[in-house]
Amino acid sequence: MPSEFELIRRHFVRPTPQAILGPGDDCALIASSPGMQLAITTDMLIAGTHFLPNTDPHQLGWKTLAVNLSDLAAMGARPRWALLAGSLPAANEPWIAAFADGLFACASHYGVDVIGGDTTRGPLTFCLTAIGEVPVGTALRRDQALLDDDLWVSGQPGLAALGLAHLQGRTELAEVLVKPCLAALQRPLARVELGLELRQRGLAHAAIDVSDGLLADLGHVLERSAVAAELFVAQLPPLPAAADPVLARRCQLAGGDDYELVFSAAPARRAEIAELAVRLALPLWCCGRVIRATPGQLTLVDDDGQAVPIKDKGYDHFG
Amino acid sequence: MPSEFELIRRHFVRPTPQAILGPGDDCALIASSPGMQLAITTDMLIAGTHFLPNTDPHQLGWKTLAVNLSDLAAMGARPRWALLAGSLPAANEPWIAAFADGLFACASHYGVDVIGGDTTRGPLTFCLTAIGEVPVGTALRRDQALLDDDLWVSGQPGLAALGLAHLQGRTELAEVLVKPCLAALQRPLARVELGLELRQRGLAHAAIDVSDGLLADLGHVLERSAVAAELFVAQLPPLPAAADPVLARRCQLAGGDDYELVFSAAPARRAEIAELAVRLALPLWCCGRVIRATPGQLTLVDDDGQAVPIKDKGYDHFG
Repeated sequence: MPSEFELIRRHFVRPTPQAILGPGDDCALIASSPGMQLAITTDMLIAGTHFLPNTDPHQLGWKTLAVNLSDLAAMGARPRWALLAGSLPAANEPWIAAFADGLFACASHYGVDVIGGDTTRGPLTFCLTAIGEVPVGTALRRDQALLDDDLWVSGQPGLAALGLAHLQGRTELAEVLVKPCLAALQRPLARVELGLELRQRGLAHAAIDVSDGLLADLGHVLERSAVAAELFVAQLPPLPAAADPVLARRCQLAGGDDYELVFSAAPARRAEIAELAVRLALPLWCCGRVIRATPGQLTLVDDDGQAVPIKDKGYDHFG
Repeated sequence: MPSEFELIRRHFVRPTPQAILGPGDDCALIASSPGMQLAITTDMLIAGTHFLPNTDPHQLGWKTLAVNLSDLAAMGARPRWALLAGSLPAANEPWIAAFADGLFACASHYGVDVIGGDTTRGPLTFCLTAIGEVPVGTALRRDQALLDDDLWVSGQPGLAALGLAHLQGRTELAEVLVKPCLAALQRPLARVELGLELRQRGLAHAAIDVSDGLLADLGHVLERSAVAAELFVAQLPPLPAAADPVLARRCQLAGGDDYELVFSAAPARRAEIAELAVRLALPLWCCGRVIRATPGQLTLVDDDGQAVPIKDKGYDHFG
């Protein structure tokens, strides 16, 4: 069996033009550009908790990086570097090769260098650390939502949770929905271009990515910004007609693993944001507003203008 | 039971004066100092592989950070920031609190800010990413050993492996050795000051930390530097008199988990390095030299000047 070092060399050591020193030493060396700050995030993905153990390794490699790039996107940072630590039950080389191909496909798509890592034997687990750059003082933070801001969400949150429900036999999706829902779950896109545009154009005040669920993640913004909000059900993305409407709504509001962006912006910028949506070919939904009420309070308003009680706020690993 | 977010807030959110934005957003934000490069490393620690499942959580918290700071030390970098990702089988708050105290005791000892992370439920696993700074172009790399360099090692490599053998019942250590061997295993020190001094004074050419075992890690330096070396058994640290000499030698040469530094330096710097050892109160052993032979080849020379065949080169997770 090839050694740990040989497996790393074969599958994970590829050119790193953005690094001063890539994999193979005690540390990687990088230099940030003048006037830039570094945005850094780390995420652990565990078989059985974050992905099904039989997940396709190529898709898993993609997703392991993409979910971290989503955090960079939510700060408006440009992805630059990543480090991967992985634990594997056995050195199954075809599996490792497919995982590496998926990881580097994502890295190449977003222009990221994989500069280091660690591998070991143990339960199937990955931990990825991603580093991006953002000009000094311009990062999109969670704590900057302002009174009267619009609340926006990108894309179609809930598809990933529908895909998971389908895979777990909790629903049977119509044929037309299977592919997009599984793609959202297994090969999510990080909204990097959206984050960059929102930051560069000064369009957003606060932003977060939807990893725990729309209500839960919006709740984080409200708490950190010490504001309240209304979310209008009628202005959320229409539910896919072919899905069970109760389940689809639940997935849209409380499903995790979406990696869309939620952001707040001044109402004066609506036309610019609408134009951005067209340019990025990415729907952006103006679905709420920041109001003066108990900080952190989120009110869901249904089609008739009635407040709906909120349960099931999102995904909490220890909740 | 407190939620994931509440557990993080209680135990892992502490002041981060070196960061622009610490835990609580999608990413942490940091700014590197002008003229500095960043050294970055990540390590995964898994219950049963890297530590015994019943390990004291305070010591485990310390070690999780210390083993990564050791990689920074081996580059001559000054530790600045860290991110922690953790997976826990259940939210056992006293255990988490003790782990956090150990982690932050180490962070405080070495002047590190814990700026972010991720927690989830799953097999007991930690992944730590550490970031340090080093002036442009001065990092101690593995690939810089030169012909005729002396080879040095710090401290007493092998104690951690002896401690592990004792805990696993493979040997019974004399009372006088139990405490230092268990301390080396469970609460290792990262040789940060040594790495900084070697780099600042331009004393070392190449350096690495001993995590896989002295022979294995020295082998990495030789391979990357495309040189060969002799290691003189008589010039290694004397073995503890109270331990089984065969086991003690094996632990010294091939035991992992030591976190001492191995470095190469010009023979002209011997007196300065000896003085540094006195100042740091850390023994430094001049125990080998770089020779012209097949690149990567390491020859062990015994007390009689005879070459000893090398088996058991070190620890390889998939070997």
